[in-house]
Amino acid sequence: MGRLTVIGFGPGGYEDMTNRAVRAIEEAEIIVGYTTYVELLKKMFPDKEYLATPMMQEIKRCRMAVELAQQYDRTAVISSGDSGIYGMAGIVMEVAQQMQADIEIKVVPGITAASAAAAILGAPLMHDFSVISLSDLMTPLDLIMKRIDCAGISDMIVCLYNPKSRKRTAYVEQAADILMKYRSPDTPVGVVRHAGREEESSFLTTLGRIKEAPLDMFCVVLIGNSATYVMNGKMITPRGYEKKYE
Amino acid sequence: MGRLTVIGFGPGGYEDMTNRAVRAIEEAEIIVGYTTYVELLKKMFPDKEYLATPMMQEIKRCRMAVELAQQYDRTAVISSGDSGIYGMAGIVMEVAQQMQADIEIKVVPGITAASAAAAILGAPLMHDFSVISLSDLMTPLDLIMKRIDCAGISDMIVCLYNPKSRKRTAYVEQAADILMKYRSPDTPVGVVRHAGREEESSFLTTLGRIKEAPLDMFCVVLIGNSATYVMNGKMITPRGYEKKYE
Repeated sequence: MGRLTVIGFGPGGYEDMTNRAVRAIEEAEIIVGYTTYVELLKKMFPDKEYLATPMMQEIKRCRMAVELAQQYDRTAVISSGDSGIYGMAGIVMEVAQQMQADIEIKVVPGITAASAAAAILGAPLMHDFSVISLSDLMTPLDLIMKRIDCAGISDMIVCLYNPKSRKRTAYVEQAADILMKYRSPDTPVGVVRHAGREEESSFLTTLGRIKEAPLDMFCVVLIGNSATYVMNGKMITPRGYEKKYE
Repeated sequence: MGRLTVIGFGPGGYEDMTNRAVRAIEEAEIIVGYTTYVELLKKMFPDKEYLATPMMQEIKRCRMAVELAQQYDRTAVISSGDSGIYGMAGIVMEVAQQMQADIEIKVVPGITAASAAAAILGAPLMHDFSVISLSDLMTPLDLIMKRIDCAGISDMIVCLYNPKSRKRTAYVEQAADILMKYRSPDTPVGVVRHAGREEESSFLTTLGRIKEAPLDMFCVVLIGNSATYVMNGKMITPRGYEKKYE
């Protein structure tokens, strides 16, 4: 029975890959992935066999991977970040089931963008948080904004994935307006673009100034809770509301 | 100027450590951590110098680490999971500031328990989720339960950290009761104990049966959203609510 491993390779560089992910890539006979990710991996593992598919063809990519897993002993599907967080793990399982494929599926977790971004910004995720994607491709916009509102009401830190694309430019501003019903416009906001890659950049801003921030689909946006502050250029959320530890 | 690196070494095994974490440990002249974590690392890196401190002495541990970082070139503080998610990164920065220490602080992210648990359970984190700790040591219980309620209202997947301890036995049941105002008692729930370690175990249950589940402080509890289902023993949350991709 072939094994299909869905590998999260983290932000993009070799440094942030886990040992398990490296081993799974080395053991794979063929590696299937979105073209950009295949190009990234080729630099690190040049001698492997790859099959690249364009973006937005996830289902086709999964079907190809499942078919390969029925022929090979070791097939890998790659995701950036964590394959289990908005990644390929779920679709691969759904597609394999639809195809009634007799294969074993394993998920190898990776460093998700929220973790990578937090480490770059300081320590913003020291307390409860919500991870919310602003892509409304498969989720009603009303529900997304309701989630933002709920995170606001209950003072959770907010990690926005897919904050902005060419088509969706106003959602992040709408989200900021909702959060400002509950939090100060001075609430610290950290943005990391291409976390962990050569092109990595980051900056701090505030909830009130998010509209002026240069954002795109390669950014992750971390919005502090009511206790988050900036110290020496680092964004820090205290561990609690009562400073019992002092 | 000494460098203090706050390292998240992931769930516990060498396999789930990142290359960056391994290198940071190898480069450290001295490694400071909670006794249990030091014992874990000693098995993997037996030749390093360690300084172990008991649990609940986080501030003391941070002060020691900051003092060492003023003497050594490379000092490391270790956390399991991600040092940036309920980890040591924030306290280290706060303590270093209080001590006005002239040191450089770096955070090395790791695989957090939510990611590790999700990979073991299947693909439960394919959609928006909230990470909430049920420890009320430094957060008012009312606020914790408000966050659970908000996650319920907005149909977010919920990851519970620190679900139960000897003193806190009823909080997870209270959380389940709140979520059942919005979600079916049949909602899938996945529990992973000691994710990624030798003693790893996991099981699936439902929101309605969570009261009967054997839980403790070593468990992470993942509660599905209204679309989460179980297939062939795997817990899967679809990527969206509209199946546009079919």
